[in-house]
Amino acid sequence: MTLRSEDSFLALIDRYFPNTHAHMPLGRGDDCAVLRAPDWMCLTADMFVEDVHFRRTYFSPEDIGYKALAVNLSDIAGMGARPLGFALNLMATGRESDEFCEGLVSGMADLAREHDLPLVGGDLSRGPALAVAITMWGKSQKRFLLRRNCQPGDLLFCLGDVGLARCGLSVLERDDESLRWRFPEAVEAHLRPQIRLEQAQTLGEFEQVRGLMDVSDGLMQDLPRFVGPGFGVEVFMSESEVHPEVVEFAREFAGLPGVEQALLGGEDYALLGAAAPGASHFLEREFPEILWLGKVVERSGIYLDGARLDLKGFDHFGADFPEHSEDGE
Amino acid sequence: MTLRSEDSFLALIDRYFPNTHAHMPLGRGDDCAVLRAPDWMCLTADMFVEDVHFRRTYFSPEDIGYKALAVNLSDIAGMGARPLGFALNLMATGRESDEFCEGLVSGMADLAREHDLPLVGGDLSRGPALAVAITMWGKSQKRFLLRRNCQPGDLLFCLGDVGLARCGLSVLERDDESLRWRFPEAVEAHLRPQIRLEQAQTLGEFEQVRGLMDVSDGLMQDLPRFVGPGFGVEVFMSESEVHPEVVEFAREFAGLPGVEQALLGGEDYALLGAAAPGASHFLEREFPEILWLGKVVERSGIYLDGARLDLKGFDHFGADFPEHSEDGE
Repeated sequence: MTLRSEDSFLALIDRYFPNTHAHMPLGRGDDCAVLRAPDWMCLTADMFVEDVHFRRTYFSPEDIGYKALAVNLSDIAGMGARPLGFALNLMATGRESDEFCEGLVSGMADLAREHDLPLVGGDLSRGPALAVAITMWGKSQKRFLLRRNCQPGDLLFCLGDVGLARCGLSVLERDDESLRWRFPEAVEAHLRPQIRLEQAQTLGEFEQVRGLMDVSDGLMQDLPRFVGPGFGVEVFMSESEVHPEVVEFAREFAGLPGVEQALLGGEDYALLGAAAPGASHFLEREFPEILWLGKVVERSGIYLDGARLDLKGFDHFGADFPEHSEDGE
Repeated sequence: MTLRSEDSFLALIDRYFPNTHAHMPLGRGDDCAVLRAPDWMCLTADMFVEDVHFRRTYFSPEDIGYKALAVNLSDIAGMGARPLGFALNLMATGRESDEFCEGLVSGMADLAREHDLPLVGGDLSRGPALAVAITMWGKSQKRFLLRRNCQPGDLLFCLGDVGLARCGLSVLERDDESLRWRFPEAVEAHLRPQIRLEQAQTLGEFEQVRGLMDVSDGLMQDLPRFVGPGFGVEVFMSESEVHPEVVEFAREFAGLPGVEQALLGGEDYALLGAAAPGASHFLEREFPEILWLGKVVERSGIYLDGARLDLKGFDHFGADFPEHSEDGE
């Protein structure tokens, strides 16, 4: 009914995803999966939709499978949690080739295997585009790391590049091979965002780390969500700390300082955290690549060199490619 | 970004779905929801896609919201379990009116309230059609009721009409108002399937009830899945036990005996169970409306009056409306 045949797709799933797991003793195939669950569970649901979050022209099937799962892993990382499993609602047009389906499933399975994640079940439907809707759950190591848990004076930090994936998207949308060669890490950051699950779990072990989230809509949108109402951010990141591809892209195509390009971002899937001021030394020891963004202040807004920034909605190419936007789980 | 604006949709969700619950102490709005979970959890994921599972022409927005949730509740019922919560991945075209969105959300919220189900979070995306992808979880009362747990001689029974919703679909697809008046219960069964959660949980209390599933693809497809490989079913249901609208529809439009039309079914969302032969008396006392379908035999196939039935793929109207088809969670 869907794809070549529903049964062949289910057989493909069975080839790539083990059908039992310590957390899933019965395997797939009943009305529901039966799962061993922790007392407290965190759970997220994220969609990955053709021509909204990805294009088939420059995403390989493997990339699609990878990133659809990765964006959910990123939400689990944003809680400082460990992922336990996921369910897959897949909509496909039915015109996908066997090779395409196998690529998508194998890209997803590779990432799932890396994190020992069972696919516990799901649903398959025909539809007018390819869309991957995943639900994933996890458990805390010691505690869940939340948003809106900052105090004035707290230091804000990032693990992972900000601004890079948004440059990658712009490059890919331009359909110019030579640009891809000039911005290879930006392209990679868009197609295959790296998810920092282990680092997020380690952060949870430090009491002085107050909160954490994953940066999916860019810092300009996510910083206010993270510090919460009534608070703002004084940014003291400098251009030398921004990825060189972001700086080059910003200068050449956007006429923007690198720091502003980095703050705009989008689909970074970096970790944004808040720590008590005294925590900087041991965090730098633990995470040499840590990027200090700024500090929490008691007035709303994002400030750079004393001036309030308003970069919302800026679009370098005016491309008709809506960005992934989400709030909450 | 999606619909009129993403924020207005989230505000709509907050108006219809309480933002905290005993199982969800923190409320929505972080990277993940944090949930109190049972030791063993059952979990299902089901999609509800425009022009595949429903049409806007004859589904009201409230019907869409209701049925998208109901088909997931049905999988929980198929385990004899109690639902605990759900997550919502919603794809919409962005052309939906405020009234449409409110109808969809309110139809879903009414059913969620009935079962005290928190909406713990989800994602919203633009896309080429309306599609509702839900993940729902629950817990067992005493035990989970599984498929493929039958023995030869076991009695098979249904709670809920079979064949009725499929007639409703055919009537609705014909776009003939007078037919809707002649087959009102069939139409209602397609638009608003009744989910028998309490009855399913009660079934789990009887040890002699061996297994349970929800009939979503029609008995011809679901009976073999239920009894498992190597087993079959001798049907002894009679036409007097089939809903009169099914019998009338079958005779007039399909040239089929009512029993065969009932076995074809589709989207019944009835409960299909297996019980030890001695259990019929107390099951009839507990469920006076119980329908005895047949018995499990030790050869594969479905038999009626001694002949093996082959009704798969039969389509009365040749309508280009693919049926909901699923296997497993």
